[in-house]
Amino acid sequence: MEREKYVIIGGDAAGMSAAGQIRKLQPKAEIVAYERSPHTSYSACGMPYYIAGLVEKENKLIVRTPEEFMSKQNIRALVLHEVLSVDIQDRTVNVLDLKTGEVFADTFDHLLFATGSQPIRPAVEGLDGEGVFQLSVLQDGILLHQFIEERQPQRVVVVGGGYIGLEMAEAFCMRRMKVSLVDRSFQVMNTFDIDMAEHIAQAIRHVGTELYLGETVKAIERDSGRVKAVITDQRAIPADMVILGLGVRPNSKLAKEAGLPLGAKDSILVDQAMATETEGIWAAGDCAQTWHMVTNRPFWIALGSVANKTGRAAGINMAGGEERFPGVIGTAVSKHCELEVARTGVSEKELEDLDFNYDTVTIKSKTQAGYYPDAGQIHVKMIAEKPGGRILGAQIVGNHGSAKRIDVVATAIAARMTVRELVDLDLGYAPPFSLPWDPIQIAARQLI
Amino acid sequence: MEREKYVIIGGDAAGMSAAGQIRKLQPKAEIVAYERSPHTSYSACGMPYYIAGLVEKENKLIVRTPEEFMSKQNIRALVLHEVLSVDIQDRTVNVLDLKTGEVFADTFDHLLFATGSQPIRPAVEGLDGEGVFQLSVLQDGILLHQFIEERQPQRVVVVGGGYIGLEMAEAFCMRRMKVSLVDRSFQVMNTFDIDMAEHIAQAIRHVGTELYLGETVKAIERDSGRVKAVITDQRAIPADMVILGLGVRPNSKLAKEAGLPLGAKDSILVDQAMATETEGIWAAGDCAQTWHMVTNRPFWIALGSVANKTGRAAGINMAGGEERFPGVIGTAVSKHCELEVARTGVSEKELEDLDFNYDTVTIKSKTQAGYYPDAGQIHVKMIAEKPGGRILGAQIVGNHGSAKRIDVVATAIAARMTVRELVDLDLGYAPPFSLPWDPIQIAARQLI
Repeated sequence: MEREKYVIIGGDAAGMSAAGQIRKLQPKAEIVAYERSPHTSYSACGMPYYIAGLVEKENKLIVRTPEEFMSKQNIRALVLHEVLSVDIQDRTVNVLDLKTGEVFADTFDHLLFATGSQPIRPAVEGLDGEGVFQLSVLQDGILLHQFIEERQPQRVVVVGGGYIGLEMAEAFCMRRMKVSLVDRSFQVMNTFDIDMAEHIAQAIRHVGTELYLGETVKAIERDSGRVKAVITDQRAIPADMVILGLGVRPNSKLAKEAGLPLGAKDSILVDQAMATETEGIWAAGDCAQTWHMVTNRPFWIALGSVANKTGRAAGINMAGGEERFPGVIGTAVSKHCELEVARTGVSEKELEDLDFNYDTVTIKSKTQAGYYPDAGQIHVKMIAEKPGGRILGAQIVGNHGSAKRIDVVATAIAARMTVRELVDLDLGYAPPFSLPWDPIQIAARQLI
Repeated sequence: MEREKYVIIGGDAAGMSAAGQIRKLQPKAEIVAYERSPHTSYSACGMPYYIAGLVEKENKLIVRTPEEFMSKQNIRALVLHEVLSVDIQDRTVNVLDLKTGEVFADTFDHLLFATGSQPIRPAVEGLDGEGVFQLSVLQDGILLHQFIEERQPQRVVVVGGGYIGLEMAEAFCMRRMKVSLVDRSFQVMNTFDIDMAEHIAQAIRHVGTELYLGETVKAIERDSGRVKAVITDQRAIPADMVILGLGVRPNSKLAKEAGLPLGAKDSILVDQAMATETEGIWAAGDCAQTWHMVTNRPFWIALGSVANKTGRAAGINMAGGEERFPGVIGTAVSKHCELEVARTGVSEKELEDLDFNYDTVTIKSKTQAGYYPDAGQIHVKMIAEKPGGRILGAQIVGNHGSAKRIDVVATAIAARMTVRELVDLDLGYAPPFSLPWDPIQIAARQLI
């Protein structure tokens, strides 16, 4: 019998997690990964910290190079190779070698789409050209870093107040640049409710960032090709550089053209095994649909942690194992200078479209014993089903030590716990770490 | 109908939590708390940080004074009042006013024992006299602080390497004193397994503390009354001051003399409502028995977080409500200089006496993305039932950001999750906070 051949489209978190699992379970299989960008297995989430100057060299963000994949795991990872089309009947892929321009066909027994996501690009005059950046692959971060080093821009406009926007605004603050943040919504961080987002907005303004909410970017004004200003529907903001952080969409075009059905937000439709409806074709990571464990609906989210998990599950199943990815809860954490933010489950805003009765509470407390030096503030919002008290979601905004507390709520939601059960939990207490009642328990207590 | 009268023996966490709940549910009830020490509702756990100089004044450790209890909640909290005896048939207590020497009787309809715990005192020559301290009530901390300020001791011997011992050793390190720590056991932190305790021991030595394990203290040598040295079975350690941190036992003498049955480790026997077998008599906090949710056995533990919770439950039930305290999991966190430690569930050592088949794994990972500045080390030990994979316990030792991760495991244990379910959890990931797989998931993954 010939060796089974596994082809993976996309060489980052999901794709290479899958490749690793396949190798473990199928020591003799042939595994090839095609990656369009110049890098494999890098931390896309780490780019803001590289831009901020906290990470010295970009190669620190690379977990494993193509050479290491070959020598350590006998996995052929080909960078600068773009898959142009997939024939799911013939079991072939057409691949463009971006260095040579050569196009060739390759065959597979098992195929994984791990094509990731792509940043949303608005239809705005003056967008194309130098000085406007978006961060998708590591190469984007490298080019942005080069631009900053060479041009020493002083004024940056960040368009979009989501996770990437906030993290990039922090990065530029650390570089002591003049930062403006524009969002057409009337709040930052749309995955948070507006009351919690208000604390985040305050923190953004507190570090000197100009925050323009409810404003739409109309054009990028240029002078001899260089960025001069960002024109919104209300003002012109002088700028030497623009960062787009308008969110991402699944990179599912290739799969769609191959005839595979799409699901939530046009992500590739898969089941909990990460299998598409076509035998031997799989999808994982930012391009694939997942399941929301609170709403019990199909869901799509682009996050490194989820990509690692779905990639692992896909790899195990592709290699003949049995692994089911139960879905996500919507957990996310981030920080902006002194402020940490976290959310899990569903927000009040999301609940508007869902059929739940619920109660909500917001408390303000301390991250540590009040008398402990530098004890920070923490705001916790918690949402629970009514009656019964099953926890539906939580949002946390606060100082150092706040964000990772969300994990307890995420765990409690996964276990379908009630607020009463959360209050009874035996969580760690010592003055440097918490209050005798952890702040999330203080919130839960008020929902009993 | 006359007002119901509630008497509470002990005015700290458990007692005053109960008093607060009673007041909420019974606005007209008469509530009296008798407290032997000069203070109510103080953070005993905060004393090491007061000694370290991190907390400027001792009154920062006081959550609420007797005057505040009276004015805000109409609760009569009498400090320097020691309850000498309880007559559970006649429903009376005999109380000694420690300021006047007067003894008087008081009656009750409902009585709560919240008498706390007392430090274990070894039978060692030279122990009595100045310069030897143990920390139980806030007044102990105040006297120790005075001694340090007045005498400026340079050399301290801490006897006992448990939580208090470690936290006090840290406090003296911060004061730049010469610290020696002696424990008759061959490891520090007996609630940890020896492999994890070894990391803690290393950290203790790393900050310059002399660590003497497997040595028994035989005598305190004095010179003109002042402490001169601690004599162990192996050496004489020069000392100006000695701290005893040999653990605590429940303060159940009063309850026992009143005829109430005792339970685990001689703590007062109560059910999940915190009720004794005698109608209208309750116990909560460090003096009361609780339940271990992993071993399903009676258990006793002295911790501020548990005292708050059992006090709350007792108060609600005393006032006619319905509250059950489900028990504890054995979660504890602490720190020693740069090292954070945490544990939950059962250890391998505890499993020796229990009827479980189990697997264990220990991993070494990072607290944050490896490229993020100051990413620290974290060691995670996890124990799971075999087969099935139900999580039984975990221990964590690592740098900043390590300890509170134990809460996820504690929550997972409370929900009777398996290691597989823990691996699938949607925990927060961003480079400043974690790896894409949280270290506890990396450990759990190896137990699947």
